[in-house]
Amino acid sequence: MSTLHQDALVIDGLIIAKWERAVFEDMRRAGLAAANCTVSVWEDFRATVHNIAQMKQLIRENADLLRLVRSTDDILAARREGRTGVVLGFQNAHAFEDHLGHVEAFHDMGVRVVQLCYNTQNLIGTGCYERDGGLSDYGREVVAEMNRLGMLIDLSHVGARTSEETILASRQPVAYTHCLPAGLKAHPRNKSDEQLRFIAEHGGFVGVTMFPPFLKRGTGATVDDYVEALDYVIQRVGEDGVGIGTDHTQGHGSAFFEWLTHDKGRHRRLTDFGSVVNPEGIRTIGELPNLTAAMERAGWKPSRIRKVIGDNWLRLFGQVWGA
Amino acid sequence: MSTLHQDALVIDGLIIAKWERAVFEDMRRAGLAAANCTVSVWEDFRATVHNIAQMKQLIRENADLLRLVRSTDDILAARREGRTGVVLGFQNAHAFEDHLGHVEAFHDMGVRVVQLCYNTQNLIGTGCYERDGGLSDYGREVVAEMNRLGMLIDLSHVGARTSEETILASRQPVAYTHCLPAGLKAHPRNKSDEQLRFIAEHGGFVGVTMFPPFLKRGTGATVDDYVEALDYVIQRVGEDGVGIGTDHTQGHGSAFFEWLTHDKGRHRRLTDFGSVVNPEGIRTIGELPNLTAAMERAGWKPSRIRKVIGDNWLRLFGQVWGA
Repeated sequence: MSTLHQDALVIDGLIIAKWERAVFEDMRRAGLAAANCTVSVWEDFRATVHNIAQMKQLIRENADLLRLVRSTDDILAARREGRTGVVLGFQNAHAFEDHLGHVEAFHDMGVRVVQLCYNTQNLIGTGCYERDGGLSDYGREVVAEMNRLGMLIDLSHVGARTSEETILASRQPVAYTHCLPAGLKAHPRNKSDEQLRFIAEHGGFVGVTMFPPFLKRGTGATVDDYVEALDYVIQRVGEDGVGIGTDHTQGHGSAFFEWLTHDKGRHRRLTDFGSVVNPEGIRTIGELPNLTAAMERAGWKPSRIRKVIGDNWLRLFGQVWGA
Repeated sequence: MSTLHQDALVIDGLIIAKWERAVFEDMRRAGLAAANCTVSVWEDFRATVHNIAQMKQLIRENADLLRLVRSTDDILAARREGRTGVVLGFQNAHAFEDHLGHVEAFHDMGVRVVQLCYNTQNLIGTGCYERDGGLSDYGREVVAEMNRLGMLIDLSHVGARTSEETILASRQPVAYTHCLPAGLKAHPRNKSDEQLRFIAEHGGFVGVTMFPPFLKRGTGATVDDYVEALDYVIQRVGEDGVGIGTDHTQGHGSAFFEWLTHDKGRHRRLTDFGSVVNPEGIRTIGELPNLTAAMERAGWKPSRIRKVIGDNWLRLFGQVWGA
């Protein structure tokens, strides 16, 4: 393993794996000090509270591998202890339902990253798989409340108009935690050069994914294609505003992907991932050191590698969370 | 005002007033460093989350008078700052509903004291106004979870059998936060000498109320009758295990009492308080310094007054909350 990887602070901006010990062990192999771990997509308020309870029980049962993250201090402590910090994250603010009080309740429970929409319309705005009428007035109240509490706003699966209006409405930097550039492959989930520049110009952040359906070479891609995509984004937003958001789905079977790709988990089909095979060299979470090696192979300076592999996320989290 | 009252740490183990600025101002007149403030009685999980959100908004809007309490450090800070610490408390664990994960969610939101039952049967046990079959098996899991999290168990309105079994099941001290001795007046809500001794022998705590329907002299009582009741309890459990739990209902109208005194807020009538007029000298929250004066008049040593007016609660909270 690269000495640099072992020495660096490593943070993954998005993982939506099957939460079980095998995955947690792989997160340790990856050397992750923290990861934004999805605990809600289509679930409502109550079911999401239960998902969080289940994740906390898993953290207790796997306390040799994990700790809960409420602040960047927790991430630094996890790294010192050789554990992975679990950042509780949502890929859909649907769980906020119709009550702003739920936002603070979830913040109290430890939720630190929330994507406003997942692919389709909700009370706040619209996702990237349908016509997007922009941020609703209730959505503006949600953004203000997330700003007040210090909860990172994620726009990866959010529509272009809702994203732009949120970037303008938020008093804090917002992020695409896991996206790819449309400049390398046109796809509803990928972001145009203009979108990448717009979020960066407003202090925002771009986490780059390697999810094969959105990569130029699809399931034929290797870890070097991931570095190419990172390079592409860095050229547009600068090396201080970029991190990784792998979108690993490790451990999940077809039922999970069926649920993900249908609106609300059960209605019309939104997309079809086909076969999900991650780029060669980084098929599993535990292979993450190969990404650092590929960055080195691509001639990246150690300072850039450290930023992109984790330091940039830590700075952003500290800025938004206020701790 | 008594110099001793001004100098002492003052904590009220139960207030169920109408949460509005006039009451918060009166809490400052009382010199309260903290009070256990009821935010759930008959409400379900979701409605209780909303009550908590509302209380937190009130705390923000009245930040010159209040601060939220999550630890005993917060109580000491509130006292230093001349504010009153709001301890979020439930008078019914009904809000936990059928999922243990809700217990930790509420703990995350700051809830630190929960009464297991309010007058009638719930999933956990039975209240003091009907036949009591004891602590349920799910109730045992709830007790263990509250112990794990560090949430004080309150048994004031709980039936005798459920109370006894909870006292034996709990690994941490439990409390009657607001009760009166049956030795002074027989009433379903009052506790027998045996019950008072039993909780004390198991490391538990007794907060003494002055709610007129349960006092020997009813609405004719004065603050000196409250001191008499405190003396009676101290003789049975010792001066280290006793505090005050006034049960002030200030600001509420008849609709609130109708709601309180019917099962689930809407079904059969359980009791009728009649006219709620607190003892003369302590009709309102802000008159609390008169209680300290009455204790002095009754010949209590300053050390006993300090313990009962607040120090004992602080020690118990620290012991149970672990912070």
